Amino acid sequence: MIKVGLLGCGTVGGGVVQLLRANAAYIEARVGAPIDIVRVLVRDPQKDRVAELDRSRLTTDARAILDDASIDVVVEVMGGVQPAREHLATAIAGGKQVVTANKMLLALHGGELLERARKRGVDLAFEGAVGGGIPVIRVLRDSLASDTIESLTGIINGTSNYVLTRMRQDGLSFDAAVKEAQTKGYAEADPTLDVGGGDAAHKLVVLAMLAFGARLDGAAIPTEGIDAVEPVDHAFAERFGFVVKHLAIAKLKGTGPSAPLELRVHPALVAKDAPLANISGVLNAVAIEGRALGPCLLSGRGAGDMPTAVSVLADLVDVASAKKSGVSGNMTRAIRLGERVLAPMADVESRYYVRFSVLDRPGVLARITGALGERGVSIEQLVQQGRGGADDVPVDVVMLTHEAKESAMAAALEAIGKSDYVSRAPRMIRVH
Amino acid sequence: MIKVGLLGCGTVGGGVVQLLRANAAYIEARVGAPIDIVRVLVRDPQKDRVAELDRSRLTTDARAILDDASIDVVVEVMGGVQPAREHLATAIAGGKQVVTANKMLLALHGGELLERARKRGVDLAFEGAVGGGIPVIRVLRDSLASDTIESLTGIINGTSNYVLTRMRQDGLSFDAAVKEAQTKGYAEADPTLDVGGGDAAHKLVVLAMLAFGARLDGAAIPTEGIDAVEPVDHAFAERFGFVVKHLAIAKLKGTGPSAPLELRVHPALVAKDAPLANISGVLNAVAIEGRALGPCLLSGRGAGDMPTAVSVLADLVDVASAKKSGVSGNMTRAIRLGERVLAPMADVESRYYVRFSVLDRPGVLARITGALGERGVSIEQLVQQGRGGADDVPVDVVMLTHEAKESAMAAALEAIGKSDYVSRAPRMIRVH
Repeated sequence: MIKVGLLGCGTVGGGVVQLLRANAAYIEARVGAPIDIVRVLVRDPQKDRVAELDRSRLTTDARAILDDASIDVVVEVMGGVQPAREHLATAIAGGKQVVTANKMLLALHGGELLERARKRGVDLAFEGAVGGGIPVIRVLRDSLASDTIESLTGIINGTSNYVLTRMRQDGLSFDAAVKEAQTKGYAEADPTLDVGGGDAAHKLVVLAMLAFGARLDGAAIPTEGIDAVEPVDHAFAERFGFVVKHLAIAKLKGTGPSAPLELRVHPALVAKDAPLANISGVLNAVAIEGRALGPCLLSGRGAGDMPTAVSVLADLVDVASAKKSGVSGNMTRAIRLGERVLAPMADVESRYYVRFSVLDRPGVLARITGALGERGVSIEQLVQQGRGGADDVPVDVVMLTHEAKESAMAAALEAIGKSDYVSRAPRMIRVH
Repeated sequence: MIKVGLLGCGTVGGGVVQLLRANAAYIEARVGAPIDIVRVLVRDPQKDRVAELDRSRLTTDARAILDDASIDVVVEVMGGVQPAREHLATAIAGGKQVVTANKMLLALHGGELLERARKRGVDLAFEGAVGGGIPVIRVLRDSLASDTIESLTGIINGTSNYVLTRMRQDGLSFDAAVKEAQTKGYAEADPTLDVGGGDAAHKLVVLAMLAFGARLDGAAIPTEGIDAVEPVDHAFAERFGFVVKHLAIAKLKGTGPSAPLELRVHPALVAKDAPLANISGVLNAVAIEGRALGPCLLSGRGAGDMPTAVSVLADLVDVASAKKSGVSGNMTRAIRLGERVLAPMADVESRYYVRFSVLDRPGVLARITGALGERGVSIEQLVQQGRGGADDVPVDVVMLTHEAKESAMAAALEAIGKSDYVSRAPRMIRVH
């Protein structure tokens, strides 16, 4: 019998309880022993819970789990950084196997927790933290046995992807799309962490930790949200053969343990026929490029309680199996974390989509292209939409550039933004 | 030390040897012991091999591996049904852990081999058999711990997908596309097994065995190849908003252990914006629908030696870890195979694309739609391309139907095909 203490019993925790019950026979055969959730930490023992939960096992005291030496595995699905961090550190120190789905905690303290687990000889599993039901963590972990990951590109925030999809497919404004997402339960009352890119940045840190062995606790990732993308950008992107997606990108720049790592989260133009372009609505996807494996794409429901519960339970089966067979810690031992330098955003090279709102006067285009050209940014395509006419209404001029350095592009846009021939700061979206 | 005997050392086997060497440190940490390939069965010991291979370990005698009680794991990458079947049965009987990438062997005898492994308490792992570098087998295996798979749909033959992609994107004929695939090394000299659908049917049996616990050794799967698809079908499909893909489909019809299983391999029209529509060239993909997980798509290089070697090595790490920790057999023990009735193809319901080559005479359309209507097949869209004119050249009439039973559609097409107003048998492609 493998004894489990569950920290938190919201919708994900309830899902774990249900799935564990429904698949008990398979799981027992797989682990070699039954798994029993003996204690469940909750804040409010009176609250309604899933019917499969034995209410006599509820406790409001974390010590009843953490100090119980007979408990083999702690599963944390309570969320938040504190007290989850303390609880997991205590569980690890007590030699318990640990499963968590807490991406924010891992983004801030994942390296530290993994290091503790490694030293103590226990496993720390976290499939549920990224990509809901997509088994991206285990694919990375298993691929690492035989391959070097060169890059990964993810659509890893379902809310942002839903909002962008609705804007593109039905012409909704950003605000209307966010409101709709909230109504459908796809966005929080305060959607900032999702549409601002912070949630994706957390997940990217977790993915990069595993894919590149990079210890990145609390690293500042260059992050842009989708709040500046307007319906007109979707229309222009379409015209150029692209769709606008919110991407989280990690790339190894070179080889060896000192090669810098490029990490960034921002909207990007993705070619219409690329697999990532067709990941719509609340779906998530991660595209991995392995040296031996080649390209690999994983996609599925990124958010949602049941997909996350499926991932948590798969982790629970893994760490319970390891415990049962006396090999706790091998999973963690194989992950060697080291410091990785982050490549400066200023050095990133890409193509750019830029939209200028200009006054339709002679010579304006020449001045814009001149300001870009001076800094080595050359134009690949240019579209001017309509004419301003006599009443001096600004018109949109949209350009796709050839590849250029982020620093050059930023300098050009700053100069142009300050000039008197544009009516507002230019909008820039990188081309993936 | 985990001792491995390798059966076969062609390109996949050589890749395994190379990857094992290149990732030795990670693998040792993961397994808890180093992995050593102590003996390699080959036909020709004089042949050139990868530099990482210690030639003193080559043997032409399978007994040198199968009878050596100190060998823990046998990895079979020799291909073919015999003697691979005998060798694996002997290895299992000897209590060795087994890894194979042999899809044809598994399609014909996989249930039997799994049953032997189960009884003997050893693991039989076969990630390399399906989907090259896509970790579909382990995702199914892990998902099963907590979910019920309802259906899976795969593009699982890289050659067919390449041929269809070239026909669609560049208007190549079937023959020209096959020839090009052969030149590029994507198709065998005799491409029948690939473009005829037999290879995809083998892989589908392996997938269904795992996803649905279905013992299907040598089952006859309704299979159609892509050889009857013409460039004009791609053009019409495009016009209707679809692309033509070669799909392998498995669906559970109902619930419980007696629910029949629908298995089929055939070309199909896939909506242009569906993720599977954008899996191009030699890429493979498997879309899984899990009850709790929801939809999940895995895609990557389906063929190729290195991706397959990556999968074989991941399996090797798994079964070696189990051996090291004394829990051999748990992976196999969890798979409970049972007989599953196959749903008859005649009962399958779908929409259809049908192309008739008709003589452009009054009343022909009425007779076609009449023949369909009599059998309950109703038309959703109809396109007639051009006019035959006075010289009686047949013209294409293409229809998309509403949903209908396969048996009804077949009866209607047979009746129409025999009539005097069509110049040849109608072409039918199912709509996915």
